[in-house]
Amino acid sequence: MAEAQKKGLEGVVIADTKLSRVQGDIGRLIYGGYDIEDLAENASFEEVAYMLWYNKLPTQAELDAFSKALLAEMPLEDAVIATMKVFPKTAHPMGVLRTAVSLVGLQDPDAEDNSPEANRRKAMKLLAKIPTIVAAWARIRKGDEPVAPRDGYGVAENFVYMLKNTDPDPVEVAAINVYLVLLADHGTNASTFTSRVVTSTDGDVYSAVTAAIGSLKGPKHGGANEAAMRMFEEVAEYASAEQWFQDEVKGQGRRIMGIGHRVYKALDPRAKVLEVHAQALCERGGGCGLFHVAKALADLAAADSHFIERKLFPNVDYYSAIVLDAVGIESDMMTPLFAMSRIAGWSAHIMEQWADNRLIRPKATYIGPDNLTCVSIEKR
Amino acid sequence: MAEAQKKGLEGVVIADTKLSRVQGDIGRLIYGGYDIEDLAENASFEEVAYMLWYNKLPTQAELDAFSKALLAEMPLEDAVIATMKVFPKTAHPMGVLRTAVSLVGLQDPDAEDNSPEANRRKAMKLLAKIPTIVAAWARIRKGDEPVAPRDGYGVAENFVYMLKNTDPDPVEVAAINVYLVLLADHGTNASTFTSRVVTSTDGDVYSAVTAAIGSLKGPKHGGANEAAMRMFEEVAEYASAEQWFQDEVKGQGRRIMGIGHRVYKALDPRAKVLEVHAQALCERGGGCGLFHVAKALADLAAADSHFIERKLFPNVDYYSAIVLDAVGIESDMMTPLFAMSRIAGWSAHIMEQWADNRLIRPKATYIGPDNLTCVSIEKR
Repeated sequence: MAEAQKKGLEGVVIADTKLSRVQGDIGRLIYGGYDIEDLAENASFEEVAYMLWYNKLPTQAELDAFSKALLAEMPLEDAVIATMKVFPKTAHPMGVLRTAVSLVGLQDPDAEDNSPEANRRKAMKLLAKIPTIVAAWARIRKGDEPVAPRDGYGVAENFVYMLKNTDPDPVEVAAINVYLVLLADHGTNASTFTSRVVTSTDGDVYSAVTAAIGSLKGPKHGGANEAAMRMFEEVAEYASAEQWFQDEVKGQGRRIMGIGHRVYKALDPRAKVLEVHAQALCERGGGCGLFHVAKALADLAAADSHFIERKLFPNVDYYSAIVLDAVGIESDMMTPLFAMSRIAGWSAHIMEQWADNRLIRPKATYIGPDNLTCVSIEKR
Repeated sequence: MAEAQKKGLEGVVIADTKLSRVQGDIGRLIYGGYDIEDLAENASFEEVAYMLWYNKLPTQAELDAFSKALLAEMPLEDAVIATMKVFPKTAHPMGVLRTAVSLVGLQDPDAEDNSPEANRRKAMKLLAKIPTIVAAWARIRKGDEPVAPRDGYGVAENFVYMLKNTDPDPVEVAAINVYLVLLADHGTNASTFTSRVVTSTDGDVYSAVTAAIGSLKGPKHGGANEAAMRMFEEVAEYASAEQWFQDEVKGQGRRIMGIGHRVYKALDPRAKVLEVHAQALCERGGGCGLFHVAKALADLAAADSHFIERKLFPNVDYYSAIVLDAVGIESDMMTPLFAMSRIAGWSAHIMEQWADNRLIRPKATYIGPDNLTCVSIEKR
């Protein structure tokens, strides 16, 4: 093999970006120059999406116009809702989202217009409609009617409203807003890279986002908080977190799902913020059990030499599972919420790719036979 | 910028493969060790698909079992047909295929089983159902009822039958079979690479293929024969091919769509084979006009120093447009036929990726600002 292989494209640089930067060694993540903790505290998801698209935070007037346009795009076409109602109720929610987004593309007369203006209109449609699709599916699969978005609500508030069909609890809205801010972008991760590869063929926005959803669906990518959730539930059934840690982690060598990260060798800044919201949801009353489990397990790991030496800290999936569960998001609906947030980053990367586009086409090393002759089938 | 960028991943090797090898400098393409001309002459599309999946050509008994399994999977679920009937008739046929394949995934109880056996079953389903979807959409969008596959027909024969609802013309069947053989695989092109990136997240087969369809849809990738078609139609309306060549190519410096290729610096071996079938379709009678245009234009280019010096020869898109047009495939249905063939390669690459899987996650260089502070919105 003459050429060095990069099966995971480790360290290969495919673009310049103004969107986000991950500094795993010091536990730092910025979007457009702002620390993620700063944005989580001081900006709404809409402000962050605006910033990713326009490389600046909006003024109040800009935000008002942006929010108005977003709200206008939130309702789903009747044809999309009617089709979702005949999907098998047991289908994977990410498969449903993948199909529904593809379907929204079929309904859009702008689908084949790849001008920057049309691309921004399509990005707006998807930023607006994905929360509506996710909330609708959470209801449709239980046999409930989907709820239309309500005027005057922002994305996080409207999502909680469409999911529950009651006046949203402000503690839940704050937690969902922060979750959406924190997950909006993270460099050229696999789903974002997928959207760039599709765009590199001069591919349309719906094709790129449909592909990204399929990529995020993968257990190695967006499925990690679901895995953390299942582990917390297992620990909760055990005698105690201490006992589980002794038996399973120290005894059996099992990993703690959501602790440790390929990039972060310090505490993931997103985990810190989410822990605060997990605690607030617990203090509001109800559903504290898993928060205490997560807290106890994180403390045990933080005091254990194995975790200390290897710099294994809670990552974003760890407390996001607790936060989403406390809001009432079922574990298989957690990855769709990730998509609801990441659409902000995907669409921004798609626009960045369009602005400096080149077909992405790597090589493979042929290791099969050569110079064979195809004999006719009766002689094989 | 410290790191060398590879925006198009030029020369970056992402995998070992036993599937195909492109040697553009000598105009050679092999699948699994067999020259493409040899396979086009001596094997059916089913034999080639079998060979890509099992790394050997089938015996008669193996082919019979494979063909039987394929035929059993060709019919579409009623729910898929019913949903396709309510798609907007003007939707892009590749958008329709992307949505329909995603929908087939929702109906499949195997969708979330990523074992090698389940992956092969899903690959079989898609190899079988994509021709049915493509033929069904060609009819549904005109208001005609889709036609169910017929027992005893192979893929090419069944496709022509389902498209036209008459006994298939053997010259057309032979042309479609050869087209399917020739386009089945081509290294790690953009759509195949897309399917590998999605698989690298431990993503499921439907997500990977839905993504690949969106990637192939891009005008820089699968859309090229449609562009060649539009050019042939333009030339046909002109006084003569010679005049068009003088005015447009020599005078205006326009490219001849389908002549020249990023990889092939000799005649694309697939173009040679397709030219023979384009001629056979013409000799059968009817629809010769564009074949003569293509022939005349290719001869003019072959005698012109600009084309000779730059080694610009007809590529696969050039005569495939003529072949598909002569069979009665409308120009916007040509890329779906490409997908009907390439599903053989996509699924083989997906299985190869699963056998040695690693998350594909490149880097980007952050070039935006840093150390900004998010001031509250009323102060901006």
